[in-house]
Amino acid sequence: MHSAQTDKPDVIIREVALRDGLQSEPGFVATGDKLRLIRALAAAGVVFLETTSFVSPRAIPQLKDARELMARVPRDLLCHEVMVPNIRGARAAADAGADRLIVFVSASETHNRKNVGCSIEQSMADLGAISGLAAGGNMAVAAAIATAFGCPYEGRVDKSAVLAIARRFVHEGADRITLADTTGMANPKQITETVAFFKDHLPHTQICLHLHNNRGLAAANLYAGYLAGIEMFDTSLGGIGGCPNVPMAAGNLATEDVANMFEAMGVRTGMDINGLIRAAGLLENILGRALPGQVMKSGTSA
Amino acid sequence: MHSAQTDKPDVIIREVALRDGLQSEPGFVATGDKLRLIRALAAAGVVFLETTSFVSPRAIPQLKDARELMARVPRDLLCHEVMVPNIRGARAAADAGADRLIVFVSASETHNRKNVGCSIEQSMADLGAISGLAAGGNMAVAAAIATAFGCPYEGRVDKSAVLAIARRFVHEGADRITLADTTGMANPKQITETVAFFKDHLPHTQICLHLHNNRGLAAANLYAGYLAGIEMFDTSLGGIGGCPNVPMAAGNLATEDVANMFEAMGVRTGMDINGLIRAAGLLENILGRALPGQVMKSGTSA
Repeated sequence: MHSAQTDKPDVIIREVALRDGLQSEPGFVATGDKLRLIRALAAAGVVFLETTSFVSPRAIPQLKDARELMARVPRDLLCHEVMVPNIRGARAAADAGADRLIVFVSASETHNRKNVGCSIEQSMADLGAISGLAAGGNMAVAAAIATAFGCPYEGRVDKSAVLAIARRFVHEGADRITLADTTGMANPKQITETVAFFKDHLPHTQICLHLHNNRGLAAANLYAGYLAGIEMFDTSLGGIGGCPNVPMAAGNLATEDVANMFEAMGVRTGMDINGLIRAAGLLENILGRALPGQVMKSGTSA
Repeated sequence: MHSAQTDKPDVIIREVALRDGLQSEPGFVATGDKLRLIRALAAAGVVFLETTSFVSPRAIPQLKDARELMARVPRDLLCHEVMVPNIRGARAAADAGADRLIVFVSASETHNRKNVGCSIEQSMADLGAISGLAAGGNMAVAAAIATAFGCPYEGRVDKSAVLAIARRFVHEGADRITLADTTGMANPKQITETVAFFKDHLPHTQICLHLHNNRGLAAANLYAGYLAGIEMFDTSLGGIGGCPNVPMAAGNLATEDVANMFEAMGVRTGMDINGLIRAAGLLENILGRALPGQVMKSGTSA
């Protein structure tokens, strides 16, 4: 777990390139390269990392090295958050020394079946067991709700349905809820209203936003979320990512672009943007292609 | 000039692909293809078009057909706005039947010299003559101020300096000022403050925002501008564009992405997004490459 920080940032940017990003890549990135990325991210001030996921290596071969990776990651100043689809994954993540378990489900039944091959109820069946395991192992639990703003199969998603799922997670001990716009269907007005709705109904639970750019609105949605009081955002180095089970999935916001935006506005992120740009350059070398991030091409605003 | 509209849109999206977009392309797009694009844009509800610029064909060969294009454009329901660097260009634009002349200058001396090869003062020298010509010809005049939020050569640009330029334009009869973030250096906080500053000091002048995406913030900046009360935005079909004299220039926001955002928020644009997507597809065929617009790949939010 990371140490207490004296200079608390105003917003927390949570890095998901290692999980959401790399699982969308066609090939497997070597564990050694993942470790180089993690060290570069840590050097740039990243604290919260979605480091990997303990899922079936048949389903997501890009993350088949979850155990080995977790055995070798640097621990100082980093919080290693690990996605787990069920109690088996949770046990593996706990054994591997995860700092935090991330449980997840889609707000849309169809998307959940396409994503993990079971119903929403089945996805949530292990929640009590996972929660108990986390409590025993002194791990925090957070929950992510996919397609929270719209589903490519079912269309509009009712925010009351999302809240009902969130309440169950909170009841089982989750202290953070991530609302994920998995396929970039949200608009700034919807973000504003949904955040206000969650702050009304779950005032003691931290809300994190995870925003994809399928319709070019991720940056506007992030800014709307910030104005509505959100203090934690998922981003991905270089802007890589997208859900493998979603048609035309587009990437996350680039970590370095979001950090640059906040710092230019005088909102402290605790990050060194030039360090992030170097890390994005490393990722570009590892993946062997140009990445969608903009600040790595244009430089910082400063 | 366009006819009076009964269903006045809430925001005006002004199309700049024909000028800002195409002048950044390596090749010349045939006049016939430009006309097909204009017809497709008009069919999708676009009214305000930056149709071309009467500049030296040596400087910008992509727009060398300005006279021929203007002779053949459809006129119904369209407002053809034409950029003019000096009185010679203004006379040519007037002869060609421009509905509105757009004069322009950079807020940064260095950028102005790189862009048009003369000082800010020299750029503004013909203003009185252009204004007289427009008044005589019953044409409106608007002004665009480049690098209004930052300059790649000079860095920070003082908003008081931008206001001083704007005041001179308004004094000479400009009824609209476009603040252009030519190289994507603005952030949402700066947009908010600058718009408030202009609304305070030039309350009777329409302000339009022209936002580039070099640092991934154009959508957030547009949303900040909308919240600050801006009702007119420049966008470019398919997200093409960028200034040829700026290093690493990135595109404009895609017209179809911005229209989709506003319509999803219940803000009327007067545009048919599927028609815009078809127009963007036509542009993609003409240019022979994938364009950065997202909605043309992912579909509308509806």
